[in-house]
Amino acid sequence: MINPETARKVIAAAEKKAAEIGQPMNIAVVDAGAKLVAHVRMDGAWTGCIDISINKAFTLYALDIATKDLAQHSQSGGQFYGIHATNHGRIMVFAAGISVKEGGKVVGAIGVSGRSGVQDHEVAEAGAAAIH
Amino acid sequence: MINPETARKVIAAAEKKAAEIGQPMNIAVVDAGAKLVAHVRMDGAWTGCIDISINKAFTLYALDIATKDLAQHSQSGGQFYGIHATNHGRIMVFAAGISVKEGGKVVGAIGVSGRSGVQDHEVAEAGAAAIH
Amino acid sequence: MINPETARKVIAAAEKKAAEIGQPMNIAVVDAGAKLVAHVRMDGAWTGCIDISINKAFTLYALDIATKDLAQHSQSGGQFYGIHATNHGRIMVFAAGISVKEGGKVVGAIGVSGRSGVQDHEVAEAGAAAIH
Amino acid sequence: MINPETARKVIAAAEKKAAEIGQPMNIAVVDAGAKLVAHVRMDGAWTGCIDISINKAFTLYALDIATKDLAQHSQSGGQFYGIHATNHGRIMVFAAGISVKEGGKVVGAIGVSGRSGVQDHEVAEAGAAAIH
Repeated sequence: MINPETARKVIAAAEKKAAEIGQPMNIAVVDAGAKLVAHVRMDGAWTGCIDISINKAFTLYALDIATKDLAQHSQSGGQFYGIHATNHGRIMVFAAGISVKEGGKVVGAIGVSGRSGVQDHEVAEAGAAAIH
Repeated sequence: MINPETARKVIAAAEKKAAEIGQPMNIAVVDAGAKLVAHVRMDGAWTGCIDISINKAFTLYALDIATKDLAQHSQSGGQFYGIHATNHGRIMVFAAGISVKEGGKVVGAIGVSGRSGVQDHEVAEAGAAAIH
Repeated sequence: MINPETARKVIAAAEKKAAEIGQPMNIAVVDAGAKLVAHVRMDGAWTGCIDISINKAFTLYALDIATKDLAQHSQSGGQFYGIHATNHGRIMVFAAGISVKEGGKVVGAIGVSGRSGVQDHEVAEAGAAAIH
Repeated sequence: MINPETARKVIAAAEKKAAEIGQPMNIAVVDAGAKLVAHVRMDGAWTGCIDISINKAFTLYALDIATKDLAQHSQSGGQFYGIHATNHGRIMVFAAGISVKEGGKVVGAIGVSGRSGVQDHEVAEAGAAAIH
């Protein structure tokens, strides 16, 4: 179960990684119902990424697929092309929305948005790793 | 300036009050641009209040009036009746969205949503008081 | 025809009145198609009123009724109760959205949002009067 | 700080350039909170570009990247493909949303929408140059 305590651990680990990389980020954690548990916008992070971080986490749980994998199927010509416009525009089709697991079981998701897709994904993984 | 550090102090104080009251709540803090800085949903708090807490904080800053005061003018027959449907449905017309001040200057806002309006407002005030 | 020149005259007259009253306001002018021609947010005016001012002007033209008159029919129990939620939430049911006329013919509308309904309406009238 | 006075200077310079090019345009200026300060639709400009001009300015500030650069990363196959559907559809991924600076510091943004991307961008640059 993702509770605020767990969410904060995940966020703290993600913030630590973002600081190492030197890029301020938005970090969001949702629970098993794809509902927001906690969010933080680091100092200097872009405001346009608030929505993106929350919805990356939402996407993972809503569709049970890492957003970076969903990206492969949703480009022009792909089998899910256009899916980003569904669910009131909340489906994100670029990295970094990934699952958060406890004891091998998916209990929620983390979404990160800040700079490049590679950096965002790395930060999301650092966050998720905090409670494995 | 509201930064993540300040926002967490505000949220921690609000959580403490909510725990005293014995009601789990959603607590959100926005900065001077009405943009989310941090949010937490306490264990057991309703998911429908995520949106409400964030938008209470948004409302305070967007209109510079405590949502509980706006409530008085936006009932049926009031001069601002219907205002709750503006700004893409983000204007909240019930307690508890209030300003967060530093050195007498409004630097952001806190929005709380959990149980009764009186309880929510009390928690918002406890949060805002943390950085006065 | 409302063109940018006309719209600016209307806005300038409205700004003058708002300055006299001592309340900064958002002022918007739409043309005969209910489309925005020009908008200004005066220094210190609330950002939540951007949307409201534009949509007050939209409402006047979309429904051809001053928003303050529409208010009377859209309260709880009224014949148009609920209309504020139509048109994607763009229908405003409080003062001050009024028509702009040239030679007795409606050519557009002005919407004002700042403080009280009475003050907003007064500013809207001053604006509309500029090109009568 | 972008105030109405500054915004008008920016818009006037942009209009002058648009007139030289011979293409009527929508021009919008937002402040540091990505909130609209002023907008004008030149005589004959397309109404569908009202929304686009405002949101180009919004995008620049929300993500701190010129919309023409964001365009490169958000095509099919790019690392940010799909980003145009985030933030409630307000992210614009084509030229011309650019920053407005005073004394080397970004204080807001201008968004222009009228004809070709090259023309729009040229007009945006003329506007931003007005207060450098």
